[in-house]
Amino acid sequence: MKLRELGEFGLIDRIAGQVLPRPEVRIGIGDDAAALQPSPGCITLVTSDMLVEGVHFDLALCDPLTLGRKSLAVNLSDIAAMGGIPRHFLLALALPEQLAVEFFDGFVKGLLEMAAAFDVILVGGDTCSSRNGLVISVTAMGEQLPARVVTRRGARPGDLVFVTGTLGDAALGLKLLRGGERSGHAVARHLDPSPRVREGAALAESGIPTAMIDVSDGLLADLGHIIDLSGAGARVELARLPLSESFRTHRFPAGEDPFQLPLAGGEDYELLFTASPARKDDALALLAGLGTQATVIGEVTAGGMLQVIAPNGSDYRSAARGYDHFS
Amino acid sequence: MKLRELGEFGLIDRIAGQVLPRPEVRIGIGDDAAALQPSPGCITLVTSDMLVEGVHFDLALCDPLTLGRKSLAVNLSDIAAMGGIPRHFLLALALPEQLAVEFFDGFVKGLLEMAAAFDVILVGGDTCSSRNGLVISVTAMGEQLPARVVTRRGARPGDLVFVTGTLGDAALGLKLLRGGERSGHAVARHLDPSPRVREGAALAESGIPTAMIDVSDGLLADLGHIIDLSGAGARVELARLPLSESFRTHRFPAGEDPFQLPLAGGEDYELLFTASPARKDDALALLAGLGTQATVIGEVTAGGMLQVIAPNGSDYRSAARGYDHFS
Repeated sequence: MKLRELGEFGLIDRIAGQVLPRPEVRIGIGDDAAALQPSPGCITLVTSDMLVEGVHFDLALCDPLTLGRKSLAVNLSDIAAMGGIPRHFLLALALPEQLAVEFFDGFVKGLLEMAAAFDVILVGGDTCSSRNGLVISVTAMGEQLPARVVTRRGARPGDLVFVTGTLGDAALGLKLLRGGERSGHAVARHLDPSPRVREGAALAESGIPTAMIDVSDGLLADLGHIIDLSGAGARVELARLPLSESFRTHRFPAGEDPFQLPLAGGEDYELLFTASPARKDDALALLAGLGTQATVIGEVTAGGMLQVIAPNGSDYRSAARGYDHFS
Repeated sequence: MKLRELGEFGLIDRIAGQVLPRPEVRIGIGDDAAALQPSPGCITLVTSDMLVEGVHFDLALCDPLTLGRKSLAVNLSDIAAMGGIPRHFLLALALPEQLAVEFFDGFVKGLLEMAAAFDVILVGGDTCSSRNGLVISVTAMGEQLPARVVTRRGARPGDLVFVTGTLGDAALGLKLLRGGERSGHAVARHLDPSPRVREGAALAESGIPTAMIDVSDGLLADLGHIIDLSGAGARVELARLPLSESFRTHRFPAGEDPFQLPLAGGEDYELLFTASPARKDDALALLAGLGTQATVIGEVTAGGMLQVIAPNGSDYRSAARGYDHFS
């Protein structure tokens, strides 16, 4: 069955029927706007991300379920990076008319799976047709007490730079996918990222991070955002970058610099944060308690330089700083 | 200059520099998410709309300024239809790389013009490239006291059906545009709609409407949403539909039913609401006080029928009920 046969309102009903009520959602799917009761004392966090066929994903290289999961995950990751607790989201879709209903159903299943995993509720959105490929726009909303919110602008010289998990897997996965591989750890990291929602909220509640961001554009670009906004610099040591077993054992072709992927590949959706050295053990213990590895990869410096130290101790020259959609 | 030369972060800076701070916007453009302080006692209203090149607009038939204005207007109209006061919005854009920076600047100018007209602030979003045309996704957020919010589901048999302004102009304008006209009242109604923000909020504060919606899909479709959700029916008289001077004097080709446009054309962005006959004069006076015409076009009935009465008193058979993106 094609979407055309189901109709716009058939599609909306098909999603709405799968969403459970929740008390603070005064009005959910099906009115002109959703109406949400904010939690007492909290501020509202809100973020929007767009995923465009041919730019962010290739329908030949992904399945609808993981695409649905990822569409929400990248937004939850932004809420996590503020230390927020994600609560609600809106879904706007431009759908090619010839798209199979099975694809749509798989996409929605994945999306709602990811929503259920983090107790986030779909409250509305928009569905329209597209002449030119699938476009997905998700707006995620979260909450946090104002004093707990962590921005990009609080890093201070002397702070350590931490990152959760491992870097470079998603970028390696995309390379492998394009080369014909369809499975494995790196491919899964690209197709089906896990947002660090629990980690972000726990860090915010601990008061440990001075600044935080999620690694979506690439480590150097995202650390660059922190130091630019904090009026600081940073020094990162390549030898300390956390790399997964599958990354370390991957055989890169001669002449290819494997560090480009963890430094500039992007889409890791790990949390990158800064904190005082006095809180280092607390930070590592808190994350270990959630089953999450964290690694100190460098430190915040005075001045605006982003310095990268190669394993031999010399200055590393990076070919690219991260993903820019128009460069 | 092309967008490619400016870069993603150049584009974001170009917008961010034009946005003024406001106290409840704790964090605006430039972090992982915006952080907004809700007003005491209010609930948050949130809505998302997507505008897709080739579906919602044709770059040959619109200028960037009015496209920018309309992109926000259609979302403000949804907040207005709940009786909310719009406050903030997010903008997600997928931009063709070859798009001229002048187009982008005009679009942003129009968007921020519309925002200023209704005291709404841009707080974040996403900017990415597109292989296949421009896609615009706006998420608007508003506020209102919970008791004032007007939904689609409160219409009661015996209520009157009101509509602001005139119907059918936008649909006529689109027809004229496609036929080569580039100006005039109807064309302007299609390209540059005015959301009924003040009217929606004033109606909500008055407690007059029992149900409300904005006319975006077309009168019959949108009245259909109200009666479906209210468990009621409605009777509408064609002779009472408010039509503009330019609509009434337009010469429709022989055999073409002019009522199709006000009934099913859509994109009027007028407010359609129901209210007790006892509140009729109050409703008309309140809107007249805002300089806005309103017209009673029929009444809510028991049962689920949507009955349309032709000018000669017979049942009118509508060929189409409104816009469905996939039918």
